[in-house]
Amino acid sequence: MTELERPLDVVILAAGQGTRMKSALPKVLHPVAGRPMVAWAVKAAQELGARRVVVVTGHGAEQVEAALQAPGVAFARQHGQLGTGHAFLAGAEALDADGEADVLVLYGDTPLLRPETLRELLADHRAHASAFTILTGELPDATGYGRIIRDASGNVERIVEQKAATPQEQAVREFNSGVYVMDARAPELARRITNDNAAGEYYLTDLLALYRREGAAVRAFKLADPDEVMGANDRPGLAEAEAILRRRINLAHMRAGVTLPAPDTVYIEDTVVLGRDVTLEPGVILRGQTRVADGVTVGAYSLLSDTVLESGVTVRAHSVLEGAQVGEGSDVGPFARLRPGTVLEEGVHIGNFVETKNAQLAAGVKAGHLAYLGDVEIGAETNVGAGTIVANYDGVNKHRSRVGAGVFIGSNSTLIAPRVVGDAAFVAAGSAVHEDVPEGAMAVARGKQRTLEGWSRRYWGGMREQVGRKLPWLAGWLERQG
Amino acid sequence: MTELERPLDVVILAAGQGTRMKSALPKVLHPVAGRPMVAWAVKAAQELGARRVVVVTGHGAEQVEAALQAPGVAFARQHGQLGTGHAFLAGAEALDADGEADVLVLYGDTPLLRPETLRELLADHRAHASAFTILTGELPDATGYGRIIRDASGNVERIVEQKAATPQEQAVREFNSGVYVMDARAPELARRITNDNAAGEYYLTDLLALYRREGAAVRAFKLADPDEVMGANDRPGLAEAEAILRRRINLAHMRAGVTLPAPDTVYIEDTVVLGRDVTLEPGVILRGQTRVADGVTVGAYSLLSDTVLESGVTVRAHSVLEGAQVGEGSDVGPFARLRPGTVLEEGVHIGNFVETKNAQLAAGVKAGHLAYLGDVEIGAETNVGAGTIVANYDGVNKHRSRVGAGVFIGSNSTLIAPRVVGDAAFVAAGSAVHEDVPEGAMAVARGKQRTLEGWSRRYWGGMREQVGRKLPWLAGWLERQG
Amino acid sequence: MTELERPLDVVILAAGQGTRMKSALPKVLHPVAGRPMVAWAVKAAQELGARRVVVVTGHGAEQVEAALQAPGVAFARQHGQLGTGHAFLAGAEALDADGEADVLVLYGDTPLLRPETLRELLADHRAHASAFTILTGELPDATGYGRIIRDASGNVERIVEQKAATPQEQAVREFNSGVYVMDARAPELARRITNDNAAGEYYLTDLLALYRREGAAVRAFKLADPDEVMGANDRPGLAEAEAILRRRINLAHMRAGVTLPAPDTVYIEDTVVLGRDVTLEPGVILRGQTRVADGVTVGAYSLLSDTVLESGVTVRAHSVLEGAQVGEGSDVGPFARLRPGTVLEEGVHIGNFVETKNAQLAAGVKAGHLAYLGDVEIGAETNVGAGTIVANYDGVNKHRSRVGAGVFIGSNSTLIAPRVVGDAAFVAAGSAVHEDVPEGAMAVARGKQRTLEGWSRRYWGGMREQVGRKLPWLAGWLERQG
Repeated sequence: MTELERPLDVVILAAGQGTRMKSALPKVLHPVAGRPMVAWAVKAAQELGARRVVVVTGHGAEQVEAALQAPGVAFARQHGQLGTGHAFLAGAEALDADGEADVLVLYGDTPLLRPETLRELLADHRAHASAFTILTGELPDATGYGRIIRDASGNVERIVEQKAATPQEQAVREFNSGVYVMDARAPELARRITNDNAAGEYYLTDLLALYRREGAAVRAFKLADPDEVMGANDRPGLAEAEAILRRRINLAHMRAGVTLPAPDTVYIEDTVVLGRDVTLEPGVILRGQTRVADGVTVGAYSLLSDTVLESGVTVRAHSVLEGAQVGEGSDVGPFARLRPGTVLEEGVHIGNFVETKNAQLAAGVKAGHLAYLGDVEIGAETNVGAGTIVANYDGVNKHRSRVGAGVFIGSNSTLIAPRVVGDAAFVAAGSAVHEDVPEGAMAVARGKQRTLEGWSRRYWGGMREQVGRKLPWLAGWLERQG
Repeated sequence: MTELERPLDVVILAAGQGTRMKSALPKVLHPVAGRPMVAWAVKAAQELGARRVVVVTGHGAEQVEAALQAPGVAFARQHGQLGTGHAFLAGAEALDADGEADVLVLYGDTPLLRPETLRELLADHRAHASAFTILTGELPDATGYGRIIRDASGNVERIVEQKAATPQEQAVREFNSGVYVMDARAPELARRITNDNAAGEYYLTDLLALYRREGAAVRAFKLADPDEVMGANDRPGLAEAEAILRRRINLAHMRAGVTLPAPDTVYIEDTVVLGRDVTLEPGVILRGQTRVADGVTVGAYSLLSDTVLESGVTVRAHSVLEGAQVGEGSDVGPFARLRPGTVLEEGVHIGNFVETKNAQLAAGVKAGHLAYLGDVEIGAETNVGAGTIVANYDGVNKHRSRVGAGVFIGSNSTLIAPRVVGDAAFVAAGSAVHEDVPEGAMAVARGKQRTLEGWSRRYWGGMREQVGRKLPWLAGWLERQG
Repeated sequence: MTELERPLDVVILAAGQGTRMKSALPKVLHPVAGRPMVAWAVKAAQELGARRVVVVTGHGAEQVEAALQAPGVAFARQHGQLGTGHAFLAGAEALDADGEADVLVLYGDTPLLRPETLRELLADHRAHASAFTILTGELPDATGYGRIIRDASGNVERIVEQKAATPQEQAVREFNSGVYVMDARAPELARRITNDNAAGEYYLTDLLALYRREGAAVRAFKLADPDEVMGANDRPGLAEAEAILRRRINLAHMRAGVTLPAPDTVYIEDTVVLGRDVTLEPGVILRGQTRVADGVTVGAYSLLSDTVLESGVTVRAHSVLEGAQVGEGSDVGPFARLRPGTVLEEGVHIGNFVETKNAQLAAGVKAGHLAYLGDVEIGAETNVGAGTIVANYDGVNKHRSRVGAGVFIGSNSTLIAPRVVGDAAFVAAGSAVHEDVPEGAMAVARGKQRTLEGWSRRYWGGMREQVGRKLPWLAGWLERQG
């Protein structure tokens, strides 16, 4: 709030139904670039340092309110769809009527409006001691929008809706975005809006005339990029908004020193933090609280959410990491899956077809192939053989195991949890370890090898005809055996 | 056929070689959006309710005919490449000469022409009692195309080919698509086309003059979108056609309530059925008879063909499903592969690196990690441990196994088919089960665990120098052992 | 060199810092389409048959020089950033001063300039006996570039920099690309360039005036596509250059008979060789010395580097192949990973979640599921069961194994290397094979199966309450057991 001279209250209109979405989900909850659309408006309000944010809900009110629960965010219900003026009034009732704050009106379906733009709007409003400032845009053809009608000196006179516009007014290219910043009189003046019009609705645009009737200063602040107030009203509109937001995010990362060889196929949520000289190969998706250190490369088609990659890490293609921490110099993948609670210390190697979950792997641990490491702690330098399974589930509960440092677990072994394997111990390949293994000991839990000579000749001999048809080399061998 | 007053016959010209494709495959068999190009024309004809569809083949005739075998589709061979008039005549011979049907000419290399457009063309033709109606388009510069020359009253007079066009005619923007609908005289009139021209070819466009000579009514019906008659003549053209078709399909799904955050990277064949509020993440590919219920999300880079997803299903990223049925509330992936014959009932969990094939899994079965379930039926609530393999192959034949309900299969177990495991039975981790397991029993087929104390010290001691170089922690441990 | 009448020397200016890259890597080493930017210039020089290539380095000189080590490539260091004239002079010192060669100046940050274009430039230069030929382009608005000022007869008079240009000169659309080809006097004349200007820098453009002062013939050769001299100065610029290069490569492949249903998502390095009728599905990435035979299809999202696919091969989706050779008719994937040293002979089947490394698999070998085959040679027709691991690592060293022909390896087996398994031998499922297996013998290395009746009732009975909550079917069963 430090940046503002006066407090700011924000009313977000989010009550609309959005039938063109053809959805069971309320329109404003449709996600764009990782966030429900309306959450972009809430985020913008918070970044402006708003004292109070009121979201006006209607259609699907309970769902919308549940999705937006956060400190400083209040809700007001609009009962009936009686127009934007009516919706605003519902929101205004929930504001402090202390006559101090400016009031900004935003919408739940314009996720592209940038906080920077709103900051400029506010600054303009205040610098000019405006009472009512309209955010406007300009389009070669503004058909469909309300047009901004100015007087001879260029001052804003009124807004004329499409239906009511004369041909001359229709030629006007400056349009009303519906976003306004107003002085503290707005809630009071909004009560005077009437529904004395063809549609019988209360229009928020009427505030302009009401302010002017008070003799108040009215302004328009024109957007550089009219896309910012593009509303997403159907799924193609959602996809378009998503593409614009993604391009914006990707461009910012590229300018800051991230290499994206194929930026159109990379998806980065705005919560993600990337270091310098990070490279994201084609098809990478980064979500949530993901942080990637300087110089790290993430391989093609890998998906990371809430994951931290320290410096020197390599994530190879086709890996899925969720809630994982990957320590310095570790390498992961391809086809690796790290699940929540995975912590890899330095120089850990996780290879293909390996899954970890609630697993702490100390420095230098290697698990290169086809393993499941669940609910386990593993000490430094331990080698986990291919095909190793930590059997953490007893049919009802999960159990936790502990493997020491410098342990060698042979291939295709099973550790039946809860199990403790001491430092420097061995597990023989193919063992199902059901007793703890002391430090430095070898555990063998498999059968001794027996050799049955001549077995193949009898086995294949019993299906000689099929072998003849399907396995020519073997058929020849069988023949040679007589 | 109900929508048509008169029957409709369709002749599809598909005899061309397409040398620019640089291919061993006949041009019209090159696939676009999951179908050979010519199959799009056949499909359009069928959707129009055509009484008879004749495909004129030439280059690669046998391959083309084999690819299009279907009820109501006949073939006529064009011998020699003597022009479109010659090709049409070959097709016309295969029509019933009952003088009743309108005849529509289509092409094997224009996959973008929509049935809706053809329906409008037909309606126009009939509404105006036209004898010969040309489908035309308009381009800013129609160079290369035959131009439509109209008389002072706007009636179609003739078609002039590029080569023969005067400068004034070359400025004409309306072009001939080559698609015509004609009354039942067409086959008869086509016999009068001559090859009395510079190229020595029979041109189908000559029909226009022949109809006019009969005093018949001739019309042009102009396409809204000239892209629809774009022919694909080389691989860049195929890619362009594919992109347009995909965008068209994706847009229709989006408008109907499907969320595609990155529509440019999603590939949906036109045989696929999607419910409302389905979300397809980036890179998803859906093929064949795939059906997805309302509200289902398919994760990034997953490929589904001929697969049914019931409501409440989650398919996570990087999964490949073919010929599978996934029951209500089941979740699959990431990195899962369901192969044909997979049937998951309700609430089944299939995790990463799991493959199923001819596998029926009852409600609540869990197979979370690194398993192969082939030719097996598994009862409700059974837990399949990580690393479980159903060994269905004896070197020659596949065998089928049956696992009961409420069974607990320990990790890294092998069921050697054909095997029956009774309800509520146990298989100890690491067991190779080669005898059936009765209800409620535990099968153990592994060695007892032995512990060899001091083994590590001897083992690593034997390669102390290498350990010293490669495994610092272990070297220290070894030293401490003395 | 055969195509050139005179020898050609090339000086590549690559000393700039590129602060807008925001990178620890020198600007010219940023990769575009699989190669550092400057390597594209070196490659172009080599394709022109240059006698000598001198790269002028400065910022990050050691790194740049290390990256470009190759026969025929020399380096000259520019000390201080005193302008392009100064940089050129540094390079010119490293040329043979034999007065014979033409000298071409290229740049380390223009990866889009095609060798074909340079060949045309050279041909024009020589055909017109030009002494100094400027490569120019034309843009609707050339703001920022130096403009080409011609005299009344159209001869090049001078180059005027943006800052010094009059309004009339600023309207000129022909710009200087900075690429010049010059006769053998260039090194000598370059010594006369002074820094007698506002910036105090030595400008290479001054050579034009110096040549003219000699009365030498000066020309301009205009690029068809000004994009070719686009410099990549920041990461968005890199991405743009990458996209243009990729489109260029993909288009060439499509024209030659490769099907790319989604060319915007396919990444092919220019070192890759593709046969006719190859199909690359969406998202495929091909790198390095990859060669694909006629008719082969590579499935979606597969990554191949330095891999050879013979005819009749199928690579299914989501496979990663590095340094592998895949023999005729083999099929691989989905989710397969072939690592360096993998050689598959004819008709080999590698299925899902299978990894190979230094593995030679003879004709007809099958490894369909969840296996790791490392450092092993396998004979014809051998069947590798699901879950098989070749345990090649003893904690310090890798060991090599040999499996004969016609062998049947049961599921979940482990071969502890170094191991030899004779022809036609068997390994029982679940065996950990620690002794060699003779030809035709069966090796069994697992426990005998024991059945413990009534075990489940006691086990689940001990946690009856939890079972009741979590496993309803089992709770019912338990109840029925009394």
